[in-house]
Amino acid sequence: MLSVAEAQARILADLVSTGPELVPLADSWGRIAAADIAARLDNPPADVSAMDGYAVRAGDCAPGGTLSLVGESPAGHPFPGRVGPGETVRIYTGSVVPDGADAILIQENAQEDGGTVTVAVPPGAGQHIRRRGQDFAVDQVVVPAGRALTARDIGLAAAANHAWVAVRRRPVVAILSTGDEIALPGDPIAPGGIANSNTPMLAALVRACGGVPVMLPSARDTVSDIARLAHGIETADLLLTAGGASVGRYDLVQQGLERIGLTVDFWKIAMRPGKPLMHGRIGRVSVLGLPGNPVAALVCGLVFALPAIRALAGHAERSLPEDVAILGGDLPENDRRADYLRATLSRAPDGRLLATAFSRQDSAMLHTLARSQALILRPPHAPPARAGEPCRVVRLDMLAI
Amino acid sequence: MLSVAEAQARILADLVSTGPELVPLADSWGRIAAADIAARLDNPPADVSAMDGYAVRAGDCAPGGTLSLVGESPAGHPFPGRVGPGETVRIYTGSVVPDGADAILIQENAQEDGGTVTVAVPPGAGQHIRRRGQDFAVDQVVVPAGRALTARDIGLAAAANHAWVAVRRRPVVAILSTGDEIALPGDPIAPGGIANSNTPMLAALVRACGGVPVMLPSARDTVSDIARLAHGIETADLLLTAGGASVGRYDLVQQGLERIGLTVDFWKIAMRPGKPLMHGRIGRVSVLGLPGNPVAALVCGLVFALPAIRALAGHAERSLPEDVAILGGDLPENDRRADYLRATLSRAPDGRLLATAFSRQDSAMLHTLARSQALILRPPHAPPARAGEPCRVVRLDMLAI
Repeated sequence: MLSVAEAQARILADLVSTGPELVPLADSWGRIAAADIAARLDNPPADVSAMDGYAVRAGDCAPGGTLSLVGESPAGHPFPGRVGPGETVRIYTGSVVPDGADAILIQENAQEDGGTVTVAVPPGAGQHIRRRGQDFAVDQVVVPAGRALTARDIGLAAAANHAWVAVRRRPVVAILSTGDEIALPGDPIAPGGIANSNTPMLAALVRACGGVPVMLPSARDTVSDIARLAHGIETADLLLTAGGASVGRYDLVQQGLERIGLTVDFWKIAMRPGKPLMHGRIGRVSVLGLPGNPVAALVCGLVFALPAIRALAGHAERSLPEDVAILGGDLPENDRRADYLRATLSRAPDGRLLATAFSRQDSAMLHTLARSQALILRPPHAPPARAGEPCRVVRLDMLAI
Repeated sequence: MLSVAEAQARILADLVSTGPELVPLADSWGRIAAADIAARLDNPPADVSAMDGYAVRAGDCAPGGTLSLVGESPAGHPFPGRVGPGETVRIYTGSVVPDGADAILIQENAQEDGGTVTVAVPPGAGQHIRRRGQDFAVDQVVVPAGRALTARDIGLAAAANHAWVAVRRRPVVAILSTGDEIALPGDPIAPGGIANSNTPMLAALVRACGGVPVMLPSARDTVSDIARLAHGIETADLLLTAGGASVGRYDLVQQGLERIGLTVDFWKIAMRPGKPLMHGRIGRVSVLGLPGNPVAALVCGLVFALPAIRALAGHAERSLPEDVAILGGDLPENDRRADYLRATLSRAPDGRLLATAFSRQDSAMLHTLARSQALILRPPHAPPARAGEPCRVVRLDMLAI
């Protein structure tokens, strides 16, 4: 059995990110920048005032002295002239400092009366002026390639004068659930049958990872049905299957996909939930065979499909984000399989994050998984751990998965 | 000046969440459940096997004893008969336990040879059986109203046999940026002018909060232009303006909106960045007037618009999620305004989150804001704090904002 890290590395090794496409900046939220975004102008574009007040020559200002008000410099309408000796110009936060002025007398420190401004507290030279390019200068990279664009990045790219942005195309991820026992929600369910939760759940996971899901019709437990339904997936970037990846008599995904060209890399990993995990390739399309159990499918999806989809999407951050918490209860020694324990989160009195594993970790409990706020990561052969010790966690509450 | 909490409470007080709409379950990711989702079936639907093996009568099993193999119960094809004395049925993980059987002899503890199964280690009564309804029972609420649907929730709703889900309609949020100095990215920029970063940035924030942004054309600094461009916003749920909310001579948003029926609730709050914040109402539409400075607009958007949009969207969790970190550097005493310090995050050697404020907190630095991973929250009149002390943070790196 492969370790989780080795399996992740082999899955990522031969993935190539999608190409770029242009989107309007206003539609780029959450997309991955395909190239560095460099500033097309200086910000601020000129020396500007940091306060409301008066643009002055600092050397002209003395406590109780007066200046002659010769104009104003509102936002968008810079004063066209020059501040001469003994002169001042009314100015506002963000508006351009006129030629000749070298400081801002803030309005709280001045008294305006008719055309005259009396100085109460003089500013130092340069005071309350934001220098041209202080936020960013032309040609400076403001958003690096590989970043998932946040609202702040979009604001910054806009300030840098970009109306369009090149992002990676969303990876297309086909999803194939198999099993004679499954029926789509709302469809007739045979006796002993269950609703197909994997297809819509994995479609949502694909969306959460930045991909476009393609839900294939569910396959019966026959080699020919699996081959038929997975046919034509060469237009996808990744195929996720659920069910049928282990060696049981009714586990036929591998045989079905071999009919359409599957070459298998590996099919077993040392983790729980989720021992059966198949990795292979059909032509240019990577294939990840997830377990059929929905809890195992979701956890394996987080551990393996999320990094794969992020890699395809050109995301600079591929790995599942981890946090550190302290254990809310004792944990026994672990065996040779990496364990992902469903857990709730709370706050210890000192503010630290407290992760408490559900006492029942049955991998058939989808309801417990949905109520979990975190997964506690237990490496293979981890020694017994006591409440209060630190542990590694994945915060499900932050992932929308 | 109002406190942040008082302002938040007044903004939320008169917001009513949007009504419900139906979406296919597969399209419901990230949407807010409008009603409790209750299970339409038991899961598992019957007593099922937790392992691959043989369905047996525990009382019939003795070490070295043999059982007669009378059939199999693969997934989706329950054994139609009954397990009689001395009989067994081949069974697989998740498939239905036949009548008569009361335990699972796991395959590792058995030897099958022709039509006979030899018992190595007998199971106890009930062992390796998952009981009907153990995950959830019919009529049990599996997803509560107000929850933002995750991939796991969607899997659970599917398992509970829902093909459709009632979610809250996305709130429509109109965005109006004002200022003679701003031009949309790519449009001609006058001397001393800047690119309009607030409109696309706030549109992305609205999306991140679950709303639908409507970007109004930018308004010039005149009462009539503001009134003209905000006209007809009664089809929106919320109007966000950027700029012009303070009392400066060129701050005209309030006067402009009063022409189309604005009644003002308040317009100043004790926070930094962002003192000028206007709250009011035009008919049924709430109005939030954010500062024009993009850093202040984004921070006020997080603190006030995010809870408002979540409330409109029917989200059970309205407040900005907070974490606890330890300070990476000393902080001075705070004045009477709540402070939101831009900060980076790292890990202390003990795994705790370390938040280090940027030394320059100039609210004109959009680039610093975009590079921030957290905001450190400093309440009014907070005493000086030392590196290593705990602090409250908002994790921007987790919000996609």
